[in-house]
Amino acid sequence: MDDTARRHNEKMKRIKEARDKIMETKTEERGLIMIHTGNGKGKSSSGFGMIMRCIAHGIPCSVVQFIKGGWQTGEKMFLRERFPDECRFFVSGEGFTWETQDRDRDVAAAQNGWRIAQEQILDPAIGFVLLDEINIALRYDYLDIDEVVGFLQTRKPVMTHVCLTGRNAKPELLEAADLVTEMTLLKHPFKDGVKAQKGIEF
Amino acid sequence: MDDTARRHNEKMKRIKEARDKIMETKTEERGLIMIHTGNGKGKSSSGFGMIMRCIAHGIPCSVVQFIKGGWQTGEKMFLRERFPDECRFFVSGEGFTWETQDRDRDVAAAQNGWRIAQEQILDPAIGFVLLDEINIALRYDYLDIDEVVGFLQTRKPVMTHVCLTGRNAKPELLEAADLVTEMTLLKHPFKDGVKAQKGIEF
Repeated sequence: MDDTARRHNEKMKRIKEARDKIMETKTEERGLIMIHTGNGKGKSSSGFGMIMRCIAHGIPCSVVQFIKGGWQTGEKMFLRERFPDECRFFVSGEGFTWETQDRDRDVAAAQNGWRIAQEQILDPAIGFVLLDEINIALRYDYLDIDEVVGFLQTRKPVMTHVCLTGRNAKPELLEAADLVTEMTLLKHPFKDGVKAQKGIEF
Repeated sequence: MDDTARRHNEKMKRIKEARDKIMETKTEERGLIMIHTGNGKGKSSSGFGMIMRCIAHGIPCSVVQFIKGGWQTGEKMFLRERFPDECRFFVSGEGFTWETQDRDRDVAAAQNGWRIAQEQILDPAIGFVLLDEINIALRYDYLDIDEVVGFLQTRKPVMTHVCLTGRNAKPELLEAADLVTEMTLLKHPFKDGVKAQKGIEF
């Protein structure tokens, strides 16, 4: 190693040491834009796990379900019946898109969900907003991706957390997010004829 | 109906027909061995989302936390305080392994957790058992992988669901599982100095 390289190396070491020290002092708290995407399980259920944590810590929260509205899911029953004050629960969709088979109705439902979502995000009383399956509505262009990303980036209150779930999250959304988790299916029993079961899938 | 709407409608009809046909063949109900692994978020929180669903559907459940025991997490407060009858909550670990710095103590705690886990799985009153962070205990050989896999394969009641979470799930466990989801980190705000926050990480 020549002198220049050695000096550079030493300088980088010092920078790294200083940086490591700075990293230790990172204590920032701020509202996050979180995405759960991928073809695996756990995208919605981990969102509901965070709702459980928020209720425990006294953080008021809101759920807007974009696509699953049609069914009687465990999470909907649980939150509406047991925690109506701690967690607001809105449904905009009527089922999966292949259930309704009516694009205009799907678009209207998604737009309605997005109107509610904006109100909930802007509400200073709310600390966490779960936009469940919104990625499906974005993927089919029921909602305008630029409008959604623009709103999250410029209008979301600094301390408010927003979690957006669903497969095929758009690149613009991934770009805008603070935290992205991809749930990947490695093995699934549906392939062997096991049906969706209470407590597990819904 | 215009052309776009008609095409959408026809496409969704075909998807629904294909889906319905597949779903008709899915008639089996049985207890699943589920793994949540990977370096991303959502492994534990989606387990707790399933606990929420089980409580909603009246399915009695148990949680055994292997590693996180030391902290006052939202899920522990929530379930112990609000649902002591619906969900049994056990803690075997005292924190992450780098917190205790004492292997013998970690092994004893893990073994104790596994003893409780077996009792809960065998209990006919219980429909769903969450073994949170057990993969960490298995990875460090605090528990014997062959013993755990052998128990799940031969002693687990047919209708009981068991979900095992934690990074680095062992290949033997993946092999024995019905459903494996890998949570992959695509983006994380800790890199920008944001600390673990209430409602989100715990």
